[in-house]
Amino acid sequence: MRLRNKPWAQDHLDAHPQYVINGDQATEIDWRTAFAKEQPLYLEVGSGKGQFAIGLAQAHPDRNIIAMEMMASVAIDILDKQIDAELPNLLILHADGAHLDQYFEPHQLARIYLNFSDPWPKKRHTKRRLTSPLFLAQYQALLAEGGELHFKTDNRGLFEYSLGSFSQAGWTLKQVWLDLHDSDYEGNILTEYEEKFSGKGHPIYRLEAIPPQPAHAPGDAL
Amino acid sequence: MRLRNKPWAQDHLDAHPQYVINGDQATEIDWRTAFAKEQPLYLEVGSGKGQFAIGLAQAHPDRNIIAMEMMASVAIDILDKQIDAELPNLLILHADGAHLDQYFEPHQLARIYLNFSDPWPKKRHTKRRLTSPLFLAQYQALLAEGGELHFKTDNRGLFEYSLGSFSQAGWTLKQVWLDLHDSDYEGNILTEYEEKFSGKGHPIYRLEAIPPQPAHAPGDAL
Repeated sequence: MRLRNKPWAQDHLDAHPQYVINGDQATEIDWRTAFAKEQPLYLEVGSGKGQFAIGLAQAHPDRNIIAMEMMASVAIDILDKQIDAELPNLLILHADGAHLDQYFEPHQLARIYLNFSDPWPKKRHTKRRLTSPLFLAQYQALLAEGGELHFKTDNRGLFEYSLGSFSQAGWTLKQVWLDLHDSDYEGNILTEYEEKFSGKGHPIYRLEAIPPQPAHAPGDAL
Repeated sequence: MRLRNKPWAQDHLDAHPQYVINGDQATEIDWRTAFAKEQPLYLEVGSGKGQFAIGLAQAHPDRNIIAMEMMASVAIDILDKQIDAELPNLLILHADGAHLDQYFEPHQLARIYLNFSDPWPKKRHTKRRLTSPLFLAQYQALLAEGGELHFKTDNRGLFEYSLGSFSQAGWTLKQVWLDLHDSDYEGNILTEYEEKFSGKGHPIYRLEAIPPQPAHAPGDAL
């Protein structure tokens, strides 16, 4: 995504604390009481301009959606959509996805979404990919029992890498799509990027994955 | 593959017992002594006309290759290639891949190849797919420690299914290719089918998978 410099972006975010939580506040937040209703927590890591997160919140009023975006100059686009939509089940977390454990408690999330994450194609940048081992370990720690991670991308290299990465970290691939827009998958919510670039011949890849299950059920050791 | 009726095919196979083992003989064979040299055993399940198996045997004289094909009228094409090539490290097993456990001992195989297997696209035929759970359990039982299964196909539905199937059966995806012919994979040996149909816009999918490892190393219990 090409980004213009928007020095006023942080001010705009700060002016709407009812919708936006900045990273430095997020370490103290209680997500259970942060929304209008206490409902299962769904997190999108890297929400970009927010079309997916807003669409998800609209389609599922029974879920609380957290749209996480690191760049202030991008997060303001989510904010502007939310100022229009006024969804009681959407909050914007303006923070870095590399430090999820600072913002969430273990097993607090019902689902994590990764949509069209930066592919970081160079081998020396592997660790920055949101599906690399240290990220997967964070997701595993944060997902509740029965929780899932849903990931889509049009980047073949990233998807090839991710299939191996999930598998080698012990995750189970519940289902895989190799051409999402030519499948019977229903209820797909398009991201801005997906809307613009799919249909240009690149398939959209998607997977649903389940983290490694503990060998013993919680409480067994007691 | 469209097949002509070739009633003389079985006779042709029977006339070359030095190259062809029929299923009813295979239950008694000792694969360790069946080849000119005792070497690691590589099995292709469903060899079709045999271009892959013959190419593999030529490229790797230090491996013993078993080309398994159920249809006599197809297996004769492998035989004719072998009559020309006279490879000491290739044998044709004319038998049904559904009964691998009758022909091999546990942990006897170093590698199993599945190439462009029948996709059996209808849901009610799922069990016939060579990557469905009962087949995977057979492969797991037959692969030696460190053994791998290598699978390629141009059928998107079969590959999507297989990624989930391997993962859900506890196999680890070592590596995945979503467009083999546009990758840096080296040493690909083309099947007849692949040679004919790739380049028509369909990507070739490929994976290398490792079976679930036993919780304890062999001998631990002694």
